[in-house]
Amino acid sequence: MKYVIIGGVAGGAGTAARLRRMDETAEIVIFEKGKYISYANCGLPYYIGEVIKERDKLLIQTAASFKSRFNTDVRVNTEVTAIQPAEKKVTAKCSVTAEVYEESYDKLVLAPGAFPVRPPLLGIDGEGIFTLRNVSDMDAIKQYVHSGGIRRAVVIGAGFVGLEMAENLHHLGLEVSIVEKVSQILPPLDFNIAAIVQQHIRAKGVRLYLDTAVSAFERQDGEVSVKLGNGDSIEADIVIMSVGVRPDTRLALAAGLETGKSGGIVVNEFLQTSDPDIYAVGDAIEFPNPFTGKPGPAYLAGPANKQGRICANNLVAGNVQKYPGSISTAIVKVFDMTVGIAGMASKNLQKEGIRNIVSTTHGGSHAGYYPGARQLTIQIAFAPVSGRLLSAQVAGYEGTDKRLDVLASIIQRNGTVYDLAEFEHAYAPPFSSAKDPVNIAGFVADNILSGRMKVIYPCDISRLEEDTLLLDVRSPAEHDRGGIPDALNIPVDELRDRLHQLPADRKIVIYCQVGLRGYLAQRILMQSGFSRVYNLSGGYRLWEIYQEACYQLQAEDCGCFQPA
Amino acid sequence: MKYVIIGGVAGGAGTAARLRRMDETAEIVIFEKGKYISYANCGLPYYIGEVIKERDKLLIQTAASFKSRFNTDVRVNTEVTAIQPAEKKVTAKCSVTAEVYEESYDKLVLAPGAFPVRPPLLGIDGEGIFTLRNVSDMDAIKQYVHSGGIRRAVVIGAGFVGLEMAENLHHLGLEVSIVEKVSQILPPLDFNIAAIVQQHIRAKGVRLYLDTAVSAFERQDGEVSVKLGNGDSIEADIVIMSVGVRPDTRLALAAGLETGKSGGIVVNEFLQTSDPDIYAVGDAIEFPNPFTGKPGPAYLAGPANKQGRICANNLVAGNVQKYPGSISTAIVKVFDMTVGIAGMASKNLQKEGIRNIVSTTHGGSHAGYYPGARQLTIQIAFAPVSGRLLSAQVAGYEGTDKRLDVLASIIQRNGTVYDLAEFEHAYAPPFSSAKDPVNIAGFVADNILSGRMKVIYPCDISRLEEDTLLLDVRSPAEHDRGGIPDALNIPVDELRDRLHQLPADRKIVIYCQVGLRGYLAQRILMQSGFSRVYNLSGGYRLWEIYQEACYQLQAEDCGCFQPA
Repeated sequence: MKYVIIGGVAGGAGTAARLRRMDETAEIVIFEKGKYISYANCGLPYYIGEVIKERDKLLIQTAASFKSRFNTDVRVNTEVTAIQPAEKKVTAKCSVTAEVYEESYDKLVLAPGAFPVRPPLLGIDGEGIFTLRNVSDMDAIKQYVHSGGIRRAVVIGAGFVGLEMAENLHHLGLEVSIVEKVSQILPPLDFNIAAIVQQHIRAKGVRLYLDTAVSAFERQDGEVSVKLGNGDSIEADIVIMSVGVRPDTRLALAAGLETGKSGGIVVNEFLQTSDPDIYAVGDAIEFPNPFTGKPGPAYLAGPANKQGRICANNLVAGNVQKYPGSISTAIVKVFDMTVGIAGMASKNLQKEGIRNIVSTTHGGSHAGYYPGARQLTIQIAFAPVSGRLLSAQVAGYEGTDKRLDVLASIIQRNGTVYDLAEFEHAYAPPFSSAKDPVNIAGFVADNILSGRMKVIYPCDISRLEEDTLLLDVRSPAEHDRGGIPDALNIPVDELRDRLHQLPADRKIVIYCQVGLRGYLAQRILMQSGFSRVYNLSGGYRLWEIYQEACYQLQAEDCGCFQPA
Repeated sequence: MKYVIIGGVAGGAGTAARLRRMDETAEIVIFEKGKYISYANCGLPYYIGEVIKERDKLLIQTAASFKSRFNTDVRVNTEVTAIQPAEKKVTAKCSVTAEVYEESYDKLVLAPGAFPVRPPLLGIDGEGIFTLRNVSDMDAIKQYVHSGGIRRAVVIGAGFVGLEMAENLHHLGLEVSIVEKVSQILPPLDFNIAAIVQQHIRAKGVRLYLDTAVSAFERQDGEVSVKLGNGDSIEADIVIMSVGVRPDTRLALAAGLETGKSGGIVVNEFLQTSDPDIYAVGDAIEFPNPFTGKPGPAYLAGPANKQGRICANNLVAGNVQKYPGSISTAIVKVFDMTVGIAGMASKNLQKEGIRNIVSTTHGGSHAGYYPGARQLTIQIAFAPVSGRLLSAQVAGYEGTDKRLDVLASIIQRNGTVYDLAEFEHAYAPPFSSAKDPVNIAGFVADNILSGRMKVIYPCDISRLEEDTLLLDVRSPAEHDRGGIPDALNIPVDELRDRLHQLPADRKIVIYCQVGLRGYLAQRILMQSGFSRVYNLSGGYRLWEIYQEACYQLQAEDCGCFQPA
């Protein structure tokens, strides 16, 4: 059996390695148009930032090492220019020798990846404007950064890679600005969670221009003037365009393979394209989203690697293993913080017409009495009746990745908020509390679903009816340090004795610092004849961050959530 | 409704707090025989070790704060001496005033906890010999440590708390020895995983006496002589007995409540005892183990807290929520390392007649090219046919707790090794690799179950048939640095060209450093006419640690596993 694979990075190289383990006698050829195969794509920003010092560490395999280990014929610098499905052949061109030749296959695997979007803006092809996708891009950026006089960087696009680039350029000592066209960083996240990280980025001295479009670039006097949609401009010595990627479907389209609505190569559940002898994996494919059923991409290394393994199994044994799809788990380190998501953010669920309830909770990374504990924030979205967990977003420091991984494993297996409540985590003081933040998220969701707790969200505060009473149940000292304007302060511990001070006929919105005391207060009021009592989800801590984010946008609210 | 709760720490205080939130009008009385309620039990060793500096941080609630927040009548220093179930009354005695009185209840909750085992050894009640269970014990130990001339400590029992005490006393500058009667530390773990941590403990300068019983204590010249079963003795200034706990069932037994085979109070799935008006939670109860169905305890803070919540729900609403049982997830920091388990170790599954396959894999805590990655080891046990995950043990540094939590969440929900393979983790270079160590564990288990990989274990090596060929497929440089004696060295990358050097009729046991290259080599051989080919699970890395542990025990092998 002869396998030809187009693309030698995550999906392609992974498919080849697994193919070899499954079939020692197969003939395997990989075509890679770049100079390198199987390199550490996700490490590129960190080599630019000199966090990773040795370039060789990114080059995990070479054509020679892949040949000796996997007996695979790896042809780098060789682009496949056409597929002839009828003849089961591809046409390849070596960029070094300019040789053009055909290669036959029994089965073909497409792993062409994606290419960075370069919007058609005036001046975008000028000097000093880069995208980052592969080792050559990385080398070019690194060389330019060290070419002398490079002090100011503008990163356009505040997605995962954009933020990594911003951090790494900042780490090199550059003045960094980030320009993002929507009103928050990390567009797959909900506004509140993004807001937490925005605050952190700004505190590090990076300028953040949100809700800001770029209209053009002008090169003059050795610098780039980044023209903004509002008429302003930012002067930079280097610009990194990081506004997303698009699946590279050129070969697939030319070969008549089916592509889909989201622009990716269509595959069935066995990763087989519309031509039964051609399979496809990685960034170039689209696949039904587990929540909506609608096809979409997952531009992520983890899914690409898993697809490679499954694709090889199906090639060798004949469609034996289904790919279950991706819940799009993603994470990013942003200076000292970590933030990530698994599943579909509430705003996107809403867009798809999927009803969901949101709850935001804060908890310690580990036991509060053990040194070094930091607060982390978990925001979950879940189905109103079943309690099925639809997404989780986590932002914090130590232990953020852990909670996200646990939540992802539960989302992936169609778990509910009750599974969060029951989750039996590994507890000792350096690692967690007797009730993990994941448990707390589950407990609170359970309280919401059962009607024991009615919640209201930060963005609802500016839209409250005139006669609503805001009740701060924190201590007077906390209240004095800052609170939501016009709130009455009755500490929860005094509430039972001061019920007469509250109007039974008015709507009451309670808040405390994180939400726990607010909940206790709510339980007291709800059982004492007060019928319209709401607790602010995420507490004052989240509202304060939310307010700051709205202030920065010069907006009254974000409009993300509907009132409870 | 009047609730009386006996015991004011994890289970009892948790039940009370939840009861109040569920029922604002209930009368709630807590009796706590000690001076403190709701304190941070798990933090006690760290206050002794001065890792936690402020004693107040351990005292999370006081009787007064609990009263004002939860309107609960907390009576500390008050022991319940008897229960009269027929009259629905308890008899209580205040240790301060010596007052004895009765208190009636509608529903009673038992949360008496467990007490430390003090074996009936000669001299055990002498000066300088302590157990650690509560704040008073902690204060006594701390005072003694600082009473002058305390230089040498012996910790008896190498369970979770014993190791925490050893580390904390070492942290204070004491010379520490640990004496454990079985042949490994952390008896709930399998030998191999314990061995990894033993090596680390010894490297820190702590003396570890395994397979060593204590026969008596002798006090002379201001020191304690710890007499060992083998006739030796260890001189110490302080001794910590940490040989386990037993459920405190004295009140329950006297009241005629049913207790079970494991010695705990019997409860039904709603945490109700044999008296329908009495519920019980925490260390004192026994509950069916999810794997064996046999009742047993879970001396763990997490389950106690979860039980408190469920117990309160059932008290208020009438047996509405089942407690699902505990998979006994446990973790401990041991100096720079972390080690833990979820589910039932292979040796214990074997004892219960539950067939299981073991696989040990090593992986980076995060991407190898990103600074600071360390190897961690995952050992899983799974069912031979279904692949159901029965336990996971993880030992390593950064990210060990994360992998254990993910594995626990999958075990708890009856997941399989295929769920590990599919697990969609949060990947960016500082947090993981594109294939997480959890995925790798799943991939390898899948290979074992499908027959693609036959494994052999470190303890099998000393029992191999005479004519078995040991094949080291690492590089010559690795081979020269150390290997299993009498192995032939053919690097995996040369194997295809040197097949003629291998005897087709002999059993071949392959090993590499961690197991991956061994697997590749095995695939080549199995597809090239070699029929009896095994790969060493966990590779040379695990075998070396295993050998060292056997050498320390002066044993040839541990006898834990059966040959594959």
